[in-house]
Amino acid sequence: MPPRFSFSIAATDGAARTGTIAMRRGEIRTPAFMPVGTAATVKAMKPGDVRALGADIILGNTYHLMLRPGDERIARLGGLHEFMRWDRPILTDSGGFQVMSLSELTQQSEEGVAFKSHLDGSRHMLSPERSMEIQRNLGSDIVMVFDECTGWPVEKDAAAASMHRSMRWARRSRDAFDSGVEHAAGAALFGIQQGSMWQDLRQQSSEALQNIGFDGYAVGGLAVGEGQEQMFAVLDYAPQMLPEDRPRYLMGVGKPDDIVGAVTRGIDMFDCVLPTRSGRTGQAFTHDGPLNIRNAKFKEDTGPLDPDCSCSVCGEYSRAYLHHLIRSGEILGAMLMTEHNLAFYQQLMAALRGAIRKGHLAKFATEFVSRYRRE
Amino acid sequence: MPPRFSFSIAATDGAARTGTIAMRRGEIRTPAFMPVGTAATVKAMKPGDVRALGADIILGNTYHLMLRPGDERIARLGGLHEFMRWDRPILTDSGGFQVMSLSELTQQSEEGVAFKSHLDGSRHMLSPERSMEIQRNLGSDIVMVFDECTGWPVEKDAAAASMHRSMRWARRSRDAFDSGVEHAAGAALFGIQQGSMWQDLRQQSSEALQNIGFDGYAVGGLAVGEGQEQMFAVLDYAPQMLPEDRPRYLMGVGKPDDIVGAVTRGIDMFDCVLPTRSGRTGQAFTHDGPLNIRNAKFKEDTGPLDPDCSCSVCGEYSRAYLHHLIRSGEILGAMLMTEHNLAFYQQLMAALRGAIRKGHLAKFATEFVSRYRRE
Repeated sequence: MPPRFSFSIAATDGAARTGTIAMRRGEIRTPAFMPVGTAATVKAMKPGDVRALGADIILGNTYHLMLRPGDERIARLGGLHEFMRWDRPILTDSGGFQVMSLSELTQQSEEGVAFKSHLDGSRHMLSPERSMEIQRNLGSDIVMVFDECTGWPVEKDAAAASMHRSMRWARRSRDAFDSGVEHAAGAALFGIQQGSMWQDLRQQSSEALQNIGFDGYAVGGLAVGEGQEQMFAVLDYAPQMLPEDRPRYLMGVGKPDDIVGAVTRGIDMFDCVLPTRSGRTGQAFTHDGPLNIRNAKFKEDTGPLDPDCSCSVCGEYSRAYLHHLIRSGEILGAMLMTEHNLAFYQQLMAALRGAIRKGHLAKFATEFVSRYRRE
Repeated sequence: MPPRFSFSIAATDGAARTGTIAMRRGEIRTPAFMPVGTAATVKAMKPGDVRALGADIILGNTYHLMLRPGDERIARLGGLHEFMRWDRPILTDSGGFQVMSLSELTQQSEEGVAFKSHLDGSRHMLSPERSMEIQRNLGSDIVMVFDECTGWPVEKDAAAASMHRSMRWARRSRDAFDSGVEHAAGAALFGIQQGSMWQDLRQQSSEALQNIGFDGYAVGGLAVGEGQEQMFAVLDYAPQMLPEDRPRYLMGVGKPDDIVGAVTRGIDMFDCVLPTRSGRTGQAFTHDGPLNIRNAKFKEDTGPLDPDCSCSVCGEYSRAYLHHLIRSGEILGAMLMTEHNLAFYQQLMAALRGAIRKGHLAKFATEFVSRYRRE
C-alpha cells in the first residue's frame, strides 16, 4: 500500500528542489502545478485531458463546493473524486480566502466567519472545525488549515494580530482534522505561514506551525496585490524558515515568471486560475509572453499559438481559427485556449524539474524569463 | 482516386434504404446524421471527437460564415476544412433559410435577398450566384442550391409562386456552380424540392429539379412548424417523387422519432441543431425520451444519462454530476451533454442502418418510438 504521505527530494539546485510526493491516490512530481477545479470541474476540460497534459493533482474549492452542490451531498455521492471522475490526489483549500472575497455580509470573530452565500443569500459559518468537516466530506487528499488571509496593504499591528489568529486556527484545524480518524489515516494536512511582508512575523508564524506539526507548509498571504518584486523579497527568506524535508506550497501563484522565480527560491507546489480563466477570455501563455488572441493582428495568422509548444492545440489549430472562435464566443475557443495554457504550464513545470535535476536552473530561469518578458 | 460523387444502395426495406455516398474526402454511410457546425465549429466539440462518435460528414452554415469570419478570409486561409481541422466531407447550406430567420431588413426580389447583418448591421446580398461563390470559397463538398424557404402556414398561391421562384434559382445555382469548374470537379450540388404541403406542387418541383439534374435532392420547406403528423403526410409521397438512385436529404430534421419516421419513408440524410443546442441547455436524448437534467429529481441520481447508451459520458459521469454542471453554468456540462446527444444520434443512425440491412426496420421503428414516447 502506498504511504499516507511522503516527500522525497531527488535533486536540489541552489534553494530549488525536485522530488516526489507519494500518496494513496498517486504520486505528485514537484515542483508541481495544480490546475484549479473550483466547482468540481477544471473549467472547459475533461478530467482525463487534464491528466493527459501532465497534472498529478488538482485543487478543489471548499467555499464553492459547500454552497453548490453542498459538501454533504458530495459525501453521499461518494466524495469529490467519484463525483467529478478524478481518481488522483485533490488538494482542497480551506475556504478562508474565498469567504472574504466572494461572500456577502461577513462577520468575523475568534470563532470563525459567518456569511451569506453569494449564490442565494443563505447563511453559513466557516470555522476551523467546519472547514475540516467540509474537506473531510469532500474526501480531500491534501487538506489546508482554515486561516485568515491578511489583506494588503496592511499595518504591522494588524498583520501580527491576523497572523496570531491564524496560528490559533491552525491548532484548532489540526485537532479537528485529527479527530476525523478514518479520513486522517489517508489524507495530509498543510499549515499556512502568514505574516505579510514582515520577516519577524513570518518567523514567528513558521515556529508556531512547526510546533503544531504538519505534512506540508504553505506560504500564505502573497499574490494579494503586492507585486512580483515584493513577493520575491518575501520568498527570499520565507520558504527557508519552513522545514526542508516538507513540501512548500505558494498559494494562488501565478504567472509563468512568478513560478520560475518562486521555484528558484525553494517552492514546490503552485495553484492558480490564470491558465484556465485567462484562457477563456482569449489570453494565451507562450514562451514569448502572454498573447491576446482577440487582437486583430491574428485574424489571418496561420501559425500556432506558440511554435515551441508541444500541445495538440498548437499542433492542430491556427491563431486565425482561435481568433475566430474567441471573437465569436464559441465554447470550443474556451476549450482549446484552456488546453493550451494548461499544457504550457505543465511543460514549464517539467522543464523546471529537468533543469533542477541537471543543475542548470539558474541558466534556464534567466533564459526563460528574458524571452518571456522581451515583448 | 475516389469518385467525385457516387451513391450505392446496399439494402432496402420498404421505402427505406441504406448505402454509401463516396466522395473525394471520404465515405458517408446512409442514413446519415450530419452534426451542425454553424460557425466553423460543432459547438462544444473537438472535430476529432465528432468523428469518433461516428459522424462521416458535418454541416456548415453559409450565412454565418459569410459574415464571420467571411468566406473570402476562409478561402485565403485554405478553406473551411483546413480552417476548422475537419478533413472529411462538409455539406454547406445555401444561406437562404438563415437570411430570412436571422438577418434584419431583408428585401427580396427575383435577383435575391438584400439584408443587414445581425452581427454588425453591415449590408450584404445573397443570390444563387453569390451563394455558389461563398460555398466555393468555403470549399464545400456538398453544395445546396439557393432557394426560398416557403413559410408556414401559407396559401397555395403563395406556396406555388415561392416554389417556382426557387426552381428558377435552382437553375441559376446549377449554372453558377458549374461555372466554378475547378471546385465543381470535386464537389456535388443538391437541388431542393419545395411545394409546402401540396402534392401537385411537390410533383412540379420534383420534375423541374430533375430537368436540371442534381447529384442529390433535398426535401425542403418542412420542419417549419407544421408538426410531425403533417410532415409525415408529405413524406409519405414527396421522397418517392425524387430519383431512386440519388440521396434524399431532409433539411433541419429533427427529433429522434422524426428521423425514424423519415427513414422509413425513404430519407437518407439529416441535419439538426437539436442534439447540440439542447445539450447545452440541459436536455439529453435517451431511449426513454428526452430528459431535462436540470430537474431537481436528478440531484442525487448516480445513474448514467441513458443506461442503454454506449458513449463515454454515460460510462463515466452520473446524472447528479451533470445536473450540478448544467445548474452551475459550467462549460464541461455543455461539452458532456453535447457529446452524449451526438453519440445518441449516431447510435440511432447505426441502428437504423443495421435494421434496414436485416430487413426488420418496421419492428425496430415501432419498438424505438413506443419506448421513446412512453414517458
